[in-house]
Amino acid sequence: MKTNEIRIFCPATIANVSCGFDVLGLALDSVGDEMVVRKTNEKGIKITKLTGQDLPTETLQNVAGVAGLALLAESNHVGGFEIEIYKKIKAGSGIGSSAASSAGAVWAMNQLLGSPFSNLELVKFAMEGERLASGVAHADNVAPALFGGFTLVRSYQPLDIVKIPTPPELYATVIHPQIEVRTSDSRRILKTSISLEDGIKQWGNVGGLIAGLFTNDYNLIGRSLVDHIIEPIRSILIPGFDKVKEDAIGAGALGCGISGSGPSIFALSKGKENALKVAEAMRNVYEKIGVDYDVHVSRINTQGIKILES
Amino acid sequence: MKTNEIRIFCPATIANVSCGFDVLGLALDSVGDEMVVRKTNEKGIKITKLTGQDLPTETLQNVAGVAGLALLAESNHVGGFEIEIYKKIKAGSGIGSSAASSAGAVWAMNQLLGSPFSNLELVKFAMEGERLASGVAHADNVAPALFGGFTLVRSYQPLDIVKIPTPPELYATVIHPQIEVRTSDSRRILKTSISLEDGIKQWGNVGGLIAGLFTNDYNLIGRSLVDHIIEPIRSILIPGFDKVKEDAIGAGALGCGISGSGPSIFALSKGKENALKVAEAMRNVYEKIGVDYDVHVSRINTQGIKILES
Repeated sequence: MKTNEIRIFCPATIANVSCGFDVLGLALDSVGDEMVVRKTNEKGIKITKLTGQDLPTETLQNVAGVAGLALLAESNHVGGFEIEIYKKIKAGSGIGSSAASSAGAVWAMNQLLGSPFSNLELVKFAMEGERLASGVAHADNVAPALFGGFTLVRSYQPLDIVKIPTPPELYATVIHPQIEVRTSDSRRILKTSISLEDGIKQWGNVGGLIAGLFTNDYNLIGRSLVDHIIEPIRSILIPGFDKVKEDAIGAGALGCGISGSGPSIFALSKGKENALKVAEAMRNVYEKIGVDYDVHVSRINTQGIKILES
Repeated sequence: MKTNEIRIFCPATIANVSCGFDVLGLALDSVGDEMVVRKTNEKGIKITKLTGQDLPTETLQNVAGVAGLALLAESNHVGGFEIEIYKKIKAGSGIGSSAASSAGAVWAMNQLLGSPFSNLELVKFAMEGERLASGVAHADNVAPALFGGFTLVRSYQPLDIVKIPTPPELYATVIHPQIEVRTSDSRRILKTSISLEDGIKQWGNVGGLIAGLFTNDYNLIGRSLVDHIIEPIRSILIPGFDKVKEDAIGAGALGCGISGSGPSIFALSKGKENALKVAEAMRNVYEKIGVDYDVHVSRINTQGIKILES
């Protein structure tokens, strides 16, 4: 008997991994939402429950609703789905809150329908949720949520996503200072052109980072976690960024950068012990500044979305 | 008894591999120079023979001489070296003629001295030859000549070179139309700034290309061999480029682009048979245009410089 309901874990994700602006993302393990998705005979998508965050539940104003409708339009399912969303990721924190809901909805629906769609197709559906959330149908959070691990969005037209291996001892530390950075602001301050010289440095580092991930070369990963283009501009919007970065690297992080468009700051470390030290160093900065924060230390989640119960 | 003389093969190289402008290069196997390098008691470097091309033999005006002096300045050797250069790579063809001589000289000298220097140090010495040849101490030809295979110049300051694995069935086809493109022209027409949008496409493709090389994914390699930034500008200087590229890909090439700063055009293919078909297609274009050309079909040389005799 095919199950009609599943409960899933939808991971938080880090996009814009340093040099990999708009192309490189990764999935976290220790922070994420839960969702329950139920197949129904009634057409359409209903968000029947939403806890943890104050977000709209009208289907067309909810990212899971919109992503789900995109899938439904391409499927043979005559009925619909009910979705319960238990948010644990804070909206606007920069660790893929909307992506978790969008990706979770379509992943669970696909499971309940017997997996007619590939991960790549699910990314396309989930991107519609991202379009609703930010006005841009970006893939760099939904791709790691769906594929797990590190993902490279090689191209948008056509959409081409490459899963990149994860070194076994790699850990992420993420600190979310409770300040508001409007996505529109963090987009607007970017320049539309960059110097060729900075571009060359950036694609050299992307190449180095990918090579380091393939060879478990933690030092190469660290040397490559550099962003000459976006970070110098966007970090202005995040009080304490330079000090957090300096102290994270001082505490042993391989590299440190802005998660998504901020305000969260991530660091990657070799081993959990280092990642915990880095968390302590980051925490101390915001304690001194007097800004509230959340900190997460997490393995890289190589599986992506997971079934908790079905 | 330590040998005092070696004869070596110095491979031609392709730099600026499509999306990898200024960072990605590869070494060829079927085309290259030969050099004989001899340890002497007399101080300094002497170019005692140079055949095949009309190039200066005064030490300070010869790339092998200048690169050799850079090594000598750092070594404990009290004597010097004599160098014979048998050029088979045409100067100005865009497949690393000066790099072969610069890299060959320092590689052979290092061998004769008992290998006191690392490959990375040899790249630094050889870059002095490149500085003499083009005014810019670039590393993207000398690195693959010295390391073999594909190399990534992740960074210049500090110099950081990463060897990238080569899929076993990968072949290069290179056609050299006998037209002159001055390096100064091909540099001058480049813009100093690029759009952020093109930059993102470029580093997405670099990531995809590196991933494809690690996983022997020939299709991914092909999809990633795209250059949105340099090729559209530089190809204007190479008559027939668009047709050569179109026909090479039509004949089965994974991708096609400008070798170095041109005028040579390279294609990568899966398997020798495809590489030969691509050669035929490229050849036909210049037959019709009425431009003389050389064509090379080659395995990727994963070893780099090789000893022929010692």
